[in-house]
Amino acid sequence: MNHKNNDLLYLEDLHVGQRFTSSVYELSEEQIKAFAAEFDPQPFHLDDAAAQNSVFRGLAASGWHTAAITMRLLVTGKMRFAAGTIGLGVELEWLLPVRLGDRLHVESEITDILPSRTKADRGVVTVRSVTFNQDEDEVQRLISKVLVFRRSR
Amino acid sequence: MNHKNNDLLYLEDLHVGQRFTSSVYELSEEQIKAFAAEFDPQPFHLDDAAAQNSVFRGLAASGWHTAAITMRLLVTGKMRFAAGTIGLGVELEWLLPVRLGDRLHVESEITDILPSRTKADRGVVTVRSVTFNQDEDEVQRLISKVLVFRRSR
Repeated sequence: MNHKNNDLLYLEDLHVGQRFTSSVYELSEEQIKAFAAEFDPQPFHLDDAAAQNSVFRGLAASGWHTAAITMRLLVTGKMRFAAGTIGLGVELEWLLPVRLGDRLHVESEITDILPSRTKADRGVVTVRSVTFNQDEDEVQRLISKVLVFRRSR
Repeated sequence: MNHKNNDLLYLEDLHVGQRFTSSVYELSEEQIKAFAAEFDPQPFHLDDAAAQNSVFRGLAASGWHTAAITMRLLVTGKMRFAAGTIGLGVELEWLLPVRLGDRLHVESEITDILPSRTKADRGVVTVRSVTFNQDEDEVQRLISKVLVFRRSR
C-alpha cells in the first residue's frame, strides 16, 4: 500500500488485489447472549443446555453477531474509505459456529472496481472479507459492494 | 396456512409461495447510536451534524442494525422452524436509509425448497424477506438459505 495507515482512501487509491488485515476481537459469553437476546432470541444462542442439544452442539453466536463484529473490525481497520464504508449490498456465508472466547479477525481483498457510468465522482468497489477464528478456521465469508468516491470530488 | 400460529414448522409444512408477515419494530435514536457505537462506529450513524453532511442526509441506522432487527422480527414471528432458524448464507441489499422513529416490519415468502440429496432428514429452504418502513418503502431485501428438518426425524 502506498498510503499511511490513517489515510482515508479514495477510489484512485484502490486496486484489485489490495489486501487489508483487521485487528482482533475477542467474544465473550455475555456478549453472545446479550446480542442474541436483543436480535436473535433462539435457544442455541441463549441457553447452554439447549445449545448442547442443537445442531451447534454448544453455545454459538448469532451469525448476525459475527457479521456485526466483522463490520466493526472493517471500519476500525485500515480500509477506511473517505466518505465512510457505505454498503449497497452483501453476500454472506456462515461456515462454522463462533464460540465464547473466540478471537476473530478479518482479512479483506479488493476484487473489483467499477467506476460509475453516470456519476463521475464515484464507483462501486467489491470487497471480499473472510472472518477467521484463532485457529485460522474460516467462520464467515462476506462479499460487499461499497460506494467509494474519487478524491477530485 | 394450515397450522396454528404457535406451531413449529417442519419441512413437510412448507410450500413455495407460503407467506409470513412479522410484527412491527420501532427504532429509536438511542438504539441507532448504541448499535453503531458497538458495531459500526461511523459518523453518519453516531452524530447528527456529520450525518447531515453525509450521503444519508441525516442520521441513519447501520445496515447491519436493520439486518439484525429483521432477524428479530423473523424469529419472533410465525415462521418458526422446528430446529430454529439456522441460516447458511444470505444475500442482502440495502435500498433506503432507516431513520429514528421508523417502524419496520418484514414480509417473507418461501421461494424454494430443496430436500438434501445426502441427508434424508433435512432440506434447504430459500426465504425472500423484504423489510418495509411505515411508509411501505422497501428498506432492505434479504434472501436467506435456511436449514429445515423433517418432522419424522
